[in-house]
Amino acid sequence: MTLSRTTAGVYAIAPTPFAPDGSVDHASLDRLVDFYGEVGVDGLTVLGQLGEAPKLDQDEAVEIARRVIERADVPVVVGVSAPGFAAMRSLTAAVMDAGAAGVMIAPPNTLRTDDQVVGYYAGAADAIGEGTPFVIQDYPLTFSVQMSPGTIARIARDNPGAVMLKHEDWPGLEKITALRDLEAKGEMPRLSVLTGNGGLFLDYEMERGADGAMTGYCFPDLLVDVVRMSRAGEREAAHDLFDAHLPLMRYEQQPGVGLAVRKYVLQRRGVLASDAQRSPSRGLTPTARAEVDHLLRRLARHDARAAF
Amino acid sequence: MTLSRTTAGVYAIAPTPFAPDGSVDHASLDRLVDFYGEVGVDGLTVLGQLGEAPKLDQDEAVEIARRVIERADVPVVVGVSAPGFAAMRSLTAAVMDAGAAGVMIAPPNTLRTDDQVVGYYAGAADAIGEGTPFVIQDYPLTFSVQMSPGTIARIARDNPGAVMLKHEDWPGLEKITALRDLEAKGEMPRLSVLTGNGGLFLDYEMERGADGAMTGYCFPDLLVDVVRMSRAGEREAAHDLFDAHLPLMRYEQQPGVGLAVRKYVLQRRGVLASDAQRSPSRGLTPTARAEVDHLLRRLARHDARAAF
Amino acid sequence: MTLSRTTAGVYAIAPTPFAPDGSVDHASLDRLVDFYGEVGVDGLTVLGQLGEAPKLDQDEAVEIARRVIERADVPVVVGVSAPGFAAMRSLTAAVMDAGAAGVMIAPPNTLRTDDQVVGYYAGAADAIGEGTPFVIQDYPLTFSVQMSPGTIARIARDNPGAVMLKHEDWPGLEKITALRDLEAKGEMPRLSVLTGNGGLFLDYEMERGADGAMTGYCFPDLLVDVVRMSRAGEREAAHDLFDAHLPLMRYEQQPGVGLAVRKYVLQRRGVLASDAQRSPSRGLTPTARAEVDHLLRRLARHDARAAF
Amino acid sequence: MTLSRTTAGVYAIAPTPFAPDGSVDHASLDRLVDFYGEVGVDGLTVLGQLGEAPKLDQDEAVEIARRVIERADVPVVVGVSAPGFAAMRSLTAAVMDAGAAGVMIAPPNTLRTDDQVVGYYAGAADAIGEGTPFVIQDYPLTFSVQMSPGTIARIARDNPGAVMLKHEDWPGLEKITALRDLEAKGEMPRLSVLTGNGGLFLDYEMERGADGAMTGYCFPDLLVDVVRMSRAGEREAAHDLFDAHLPLMRYEQQPGVGLAVRKYVLQRRGVLASDAQRSPSRGLTPTARAEVDHLLRRLARHDARAAF
Repeated sequence: MTLSRTTAGVYAIAPTPFAPDGSVDHASLDRLVDFYGEVGVDGLTVLGQLGEAPKLDQDEAVEIARRVIERADVPVVVGVSAPGFAAMRSLTAAVMDAGAAGVMIAPPNTLRTDDQVVGYYAGAADAIGEGTPFVIQDYPLTFSVQMSPGTIARIARDNPGAVMLKHEDWPGLEKITALRDLEAKGEMPRLSVLTGNGGLFLDYEMERGADGAMTGYCFPDLLVDVVRMSRAGEREAAHDLFDAHLPLMRYEQQPGVGLAVRKYVLQRRGVLASDAQRSPSRGLTPTARAEVDHLLRRLARHDARAAF
Repeated sequence: MTLSRTTAGVYAIAPTPFAPDGSVDHASLDRLVDFYGEVGVDGLTVLGQLGEAPKLDQDEAVEIARRVIERADVPVVVGVSAPGFAAMRSLTAAVMDAGAAGVMIAPPNTLRTDDQVVGYYAGAADAIGEGTPFVIQDYPLTFSVQMSPGTIARIARDNPGAVMLKHEDWPGLEKITALRDLEAKGEMPRLSVLTGNGGLFLDYEMERGADGAMTGYCFPDLLVDVVRMSRAGEREAAHDLFDAHLPLMRYEQQPGVGLAVRKYVLQRRGVLASDAQRSPSRGLTPTARAEVDHLLRRLARHDARAAF
Repeated sequence: MTLSRTTAGVYAIAPTPFAPDGSVDHASLDRLVDFYGEVGVDGLTVLGQLGEAPKLDQDEAVEIARRVIERADVPVVVGVSAPGFAAMRSLTAAVMDAGAAGVMIAPPNTLRTDDQVVGYYAGAADAIGEGTPFVIQDYPLTFSVQMSPGTIARIARDNPGAVMLKHEDWPGLEKITALRDLEAKGEMPRLSVLTGNGGLFLDYEMERGADGAMTGYCFPDLLVDVVRMSRAGEREAAHDLFDAHLPLMRYEQQPGVGLAVRKYVLQRRGVLASDAQRSPSRGLTPTARAEVDHLLRRLARHDARAAF
Repeated sequence: MTLSRTTAGVYAIAPTPFAPDGSVDHASLDRLVDFYGEVGVDGLTVLGQLGEAPKLDQDEAVEIARRVIERADVPVVVGVSAPGFAAMRSLTAAVMDAGAAGVMIAPPNTLRTDDQVVGYYAGAADAIGEGTPFVIQDYPLTFSVQMSPGTIARIARDNPGAVMLKHEDWPGLEKITALRDLEAKGEMPRLSVLTGNGGLFLDYEMERGADGAMTGYCFPDLLVDVVRMSRAGEREAAHDLFDAHLPLMRYEQQPGVGLAVRKYVLQRRGVLASDAQRSPSRGLTPTARAEVDHLLRRLARHDARAAF
């Protein structure tokens, strides 16, 4: 079970459950893995930006990755972005040994020119070892690094390990089209493209040629449904279900506060024991919780899974 | 008709109509002003970021402002952001003479500390003259300047002319609450708060205490309806109508490409003769146009104004 | 007298003289032009970043450019960077009509990828007209746009008007070498390379292949001497004189406050009537003035031109 | 031997010696510690930005800190900046246990408003424990976080552990004056202020009220001399010696390439066995080495320590 350039479906970005005292909540972590299995995701991604990876020390990070890999029935991708290649190398070695399907690497926000970006991924590929499949995380809003389709093509050509793009440029629809065009012209090898951004454009991303989603919306079941219906050609049905979720999805996609929404809903769904985050964190005010409750009540009119 | 700290309602951000050859299309501009009047907006804003103001030279800018002010039955705000105070001063003088209701000022993206932001607005207020009401544009996503509620409070306290906040921080709901709390505690004078971001959070922004919207969504009629219903306490009806528009609204709110969507829909609605932008611009691909058409067809099931 | 790809020597970046009340001081401007002629510069650049161009309105800008062009015996480059191409086009037309030798264009700080930078200069070249020679300003510290040698090569290949590079990347020595190597390999046309950064690396930049300097150090005479000696092969003598000026040069090269130092020294040298800047500005405290005076006294031990 | 608000003198920023194969070179590390002792520094700082800290994994980092603390006769500050508080906490605990004099904390480059900066240091102080003295690293050029004097004053007031400022804002002279003024007015507790920026303004920084330097110039002996002479009131002598070093100092202070210069000179001085850096790194080209050799030969005419 390793990532490849044809991997498709929904990879859920898993949050890291914490107890209110800041310790890792392993029971909730187990429940979360089981929950994702039940809703039918095709894979999991742990230790991403919204998995609060930077707030863990390295021992905790490895421990969480191991536990998830062991329990899950699906492939697990592990975020290994680090300020330097030494830490990236040791974390990658540990999680690949434990059975990870691949790793995910975001560019440091000091990169500017195309050559710098390409050079960084060459160095990273070398650090993690040639046999290790990795995901390019293209998320300019958070990392302030912009990769043109041509730059992504260069990375894909240069590195056999570069098998997947976590696509979350914004706007991003034309980028999917541009990449698929470059592939069709033989100017780059095919990449698996899973989209992020909380799913906010998943409806049209699928129609543009995405292979699925890798994101963390609090209803992964919705992501699974939309991807399935879209691939089955049930266009209007996919949009109808998607549109019903869009008000909540948009609310969850707010930078900074989004993770709090996600954990709160997962708590309300009975998956997490607590919506606690590790410091520094940004919680929900009572007003915000009431807004999320309101959004859930309205959603429940269209999707019974929101009625609880 | 000048802006004040109690101004409320919908101020539509007007795009600047161009002919395909890049010249200003005055006939479409007149039609646009009339259209806004018919849908019932409370005011207009011209020469903002999405009015392609930086692509106009100063004579064209003044000419457009004058024409809109003369034709409109509602107050007109004019964007006067400029790289320096000399250009800001001369543009402000020209448009206030012509009858503008106030001006809008965005911070230059080199500002970082609170003191720098406060100092900038002090200098700008001095440049435009003490009697001139102005709008603080708080749009970190585009200008990369972050203003905390405390910083906005300082600007409001220091400058009698600072009467309105164009609120488009993201996330921004708690910011409205924080500002209204500071006002309630007497720590800052009341500001008129009109929200932007394409309307993407208008539903809850109204509930948090916003006075209305100042944004450019291609259905200003929807903004007018939501603000009216929200103020009338028709909560679920406001959300129902809002949610019907959200898929298109989200599509239009994509950075860079959003203006192309807006102009295309206004052209389809018969208001603009062309959806042309001045160079440098980012047009819609045929696929993107088809997506917008699809969104309009789906919207028309809920809102007859989208059926054309 | 137009710029070409073999232009060499020292182009002094001229500050704009203001009276303490903020008006343009034309008498000082004339004296400044004469002063530059006397010290033997090969050209002048007006309306650059340190010419306080953004603080001028367009009429003032054109007036200043015309006056300098008329009075100077050397070619004059005019900065025409603008938020949009319309203003750039009209300013360029006005100054080229008046006899400018070329224009200088800095990239807007929103550009990130190589394609965006290349595309911007293509648009600018089109806006100013094909026959107009222009200077690419490569100053990442201020504009936060990074151009790799390959990107500069693309701009030079694509645009016949791109004849000169104002080189002020930091570090930049290897960049000069890389560009000269690309030229030698026939991968790009030759560019005139004049260096900036206040002259802080002029000693070695000349040895790396620069054609001269385009910067605004308060002793343009020193720049003229160093360029001359360096080209004449008087290496150690060039370094000796350069090193004597380095303490002051370093002091003047401080971001933000540098222009105040420059104007203060030009005032002490009898060229400017006042060291005033237009608002917003950052003046020298009495302590800072005393430090500059101290630096001048120390410099005068090696260079009599600093004894006044 | 812990840091306090009156700590003064020179704290050398120690590079981390690597063998050409990328392993830590412990023999060179020992020699480096002894060398610093011989030249008379008052303290050492390890695992800073220029100590290539981000390229070490946590075990290596702790091992290096321990070894230096054990061998040195002077206080040792350890850089503990980390993407999250968990890693910062565990690294701090390890090095304080080992006998460190304090830790140094740089702000993450996502912080913008004053409140965000103040909040971050409150969180960090909590994470490392109230008894732990720490250094605020104020280095906007690298971290793109700007702290006004008022913000630094708030951090100093709020956190008893905040005892020292590593001052490397640029320009920074007025900031020292502003901080000393705030202290004199009783608006903030006294901070120890050690300056960085490679020493480029050390001459005047001492006269403005700095307590010394914390930087890594390849002649720490020069820093020791200038600080001593400046404090002894030997003003012109301090400047004379400083000015002799300025050409090399300026060359070493180039971003990115500076560390390569530093290691190369320390190798030529016989302290390091190799000038290797861990990947990703930016080495010196043969031309650059020749330039450094040239600078050393010229320096040797004034300072015999450069003759080797």
